[in-house]
Amino acid sequence: MKSTEIHLVERPVGMPEPHHFKAVTVDLPTPAEGEVQVRNLYMAVDPAMRGRMYDAKSYVPPFALNAPMEGPAVGEVIASAHPDFQPGDLVFSRLGWREAFNAPASALEHRDREALPPQSYLTFAGVTGLTAYAGLFHVGGLKPGDTVFVSAASGGVGSLVCQMAKLKGHKVIGAAGGARKLAFLKEELKLDGAFDYKAEPNLTKALARELKAISEKGIDLYFDNVGGEHLHAAIALANDYARFPICGMISQYNLAGEAPMAPRNLMLMMGKRIRMQGFIATDHLPLWQHFTADMIAWHKAGLLHSAETVHDGIDNALTAFFALFTGDNLGRALVKLN
Amino acid sequence: MKSTEIHLVERPVGMPEPHHFKAVTVDLPTPAEGEVQVRNLYMAVDPAMRGRMYDAKSYVPPFALNAPMEGPAVGEVIASAHPDFQPGDLVFSRLGWREAFNAPASALEHRDREALPPQSYLTFAGVTGLTAYAGLFHVGGLKPGDTVFVSAASGGVGSLVCQMAKLKGHKVIGAAGGARKLAFLKEELKLDGAFDYKAEPNLTKALARELKAISEKGIDLYFDNVGGEHLHAAIALANDYARFPICGMISQYNLAGEAPMAPRNLMLMMGKRIRMQGFIATDHLPLWQHFTADMIAWHKAGLLHSAETVHDGIDNALTAFFALFTGDNLGRALVKLN
Repeated sequence: MKSTEIHLVERPVGMPEPHHFKAVTVDLPTPAEGEVQVRNLYMAVDPAMRGRMYDAKSYVPPFALNAPMEGPAVGEVIASAHPDFQPGDLVFSRLGWREAFNAPASALEHRDREALPPQSYLTFAGVTGLTAYAGLFHVGGLKPGDTVFVSAASGGVGSLVCQMAKLKGHKVIGAAGGARKLAFLKEELKLDGAFDYKAEPNLTKALARELKAISEKGIDLYFDNVGGEHLHAAIALANDYARFPICGMISQYNLAGEAPMAPRNLMLMMGKRIRMQGFIATDHLPLWQHFTADMIAWHKAGLLHSAETVHDGIDNALTAFFALFTGDNLGRALVKLN
Repeated sequence: MKSTEIHLVERPVGMPEPHHFKAVTVDLPTPAEGEVQVRNLYMAVDPAMRGRMYDAKSYVPPFALNAPMEGPAVGEVIASAHPDFQPGDLVFSRLGWREAFNAPASALEHRDREALPPQSYLTFAGVTGLTAYAGLFHVGGLKPGDTVFVSAASGGVGSLVCQMAKLKGHKVIGAAGGARKLAFLKEELKLDGAFDYKAEPNLTKALARELKAISEKGIDLYFDNVGGEHLHAAIALANDYARFPICGMISQYNLAGEAPMAPRNLMLMMGKRIRMQGFIATDHLPLWQHFTADMIAWHKAGLLHSAETVHDGIDNALTAFFALFTGDNLGRALVKLN
């Protein structure tokens, strides 16, 4: 069986470009004893992959050069030399960026083919969903009456944060870039307030205007996916005791050498007693059982729109990845591989 | 009885200067029914007073113009027209910046003259001490094995944080400005590491050097009194799950119009799961009983050096205040009033 896979061949400084990568087609042998052969159905791309292209210590190791990159994928078992897996089984792995692969059984996790559609294990029922769930409810400590602000609100995580806060009865304001995403926030997610940060000269004024329109003085919880000016606006308009789960700062990722834009009003944290908490979803795996039960229930109840942009085929995997940094994906960015 | 008091006559923009203030001498009448006459023994000045000179909403109201400023003071009762207070009683009030005053009994709190020296109620046994105590143990969640970094470590709060962490058995690194303060950290507080931030071109390198000297990889708790470059260094050298109680950002207070230096590495908060928490000591008043018991015990055991700089007389109150911003005070800045 042939499989095309994407290798990292050079570590980017600043914005990644096509010449940093190479597509390589390999022949897969019959799986050896203890191995399983998997044909990937979907893979996901996400901004954290940018971090793994640096040769720097982080909470996950960097990608190796001249080897396929890794990333979340769901696939189906084609052949198995391990008793726990049978052809046709749906499996999750971290072995994306390739059409198919052989791997030891320990690299695979079963997923329930009946409960949810396969790609949902990369969106609301996967780590993306857990990130939203853990950040909003556990790190952020969402409590009744909280007004919520979400940056990158049309993204994979952000759109789920918005929906989870809405279904719990909260007022939610979202920020996203461009008219199409703004329309999505208003018309699909039905947020109480929304603005297009690319069209606003001053994000603090934009957030203040949206708060005023819903007769709210400030925000109690800011789910930060962006950092920079969005974080500045959130600090400026935070109510006392506001909590800021810090999930990502995508505005800061590709600044080769430049000083990142940082909030200039951090000193307001004391008077407002703001709590900012960086977190990683995988620290919250003990929530998995409750999280999955909620996701299945909310999905069956029609309360979750899975916001996703699907790119077709391994040849478009890099296009999907680059689009993360130009803001062209709506929701979670997936690549349909087979 | 005559009393000299200091009025705010103009709101400073940027650094406060003498012409923003005026000394006024008043005659105090005999206290009216329900009032008490108090002669202040000591008052304290602190950086937060700078914030109250702005006409801006904060967690405490701004100082009024052409009226005496307010601030913590301990004094003794001279005359009383209220049954709860007798001449000779030691009392705490927020009515500093004046030698003596008449006030309703409700503005006064008794303090124990026997347990501790009077000025300690403005230092380790007062809100300064509670700030250190609540920030280190409760907001910061100090736990065994934590390596602690403290900025403004020779200041009123910082010197107490250092001592509390040391007496609990922790390794502590302190930063302060100037050779005299550095010597204080090393020789009096006997910290495990210390540096003079004014003599260091790069605070991250200075902190890394001090950590290496004690064979520690990073810090687990950063008690922030300063913000800016100190905060940047703390983020750069934080261990995973580090906690940063944010007590003050004095480096950011007097920048009229300039963009404050902010940490440029906030995005590391996610991977390191850093928790930054702004706090106000008075939110932690429910700790008062345990706090006071610990302070008296640690004082009797000789475990607390009260770091303080005492200025003499109301005529030197502004000198004491201005010195907060030039770094000339060692420890808590007090003014002996009588």
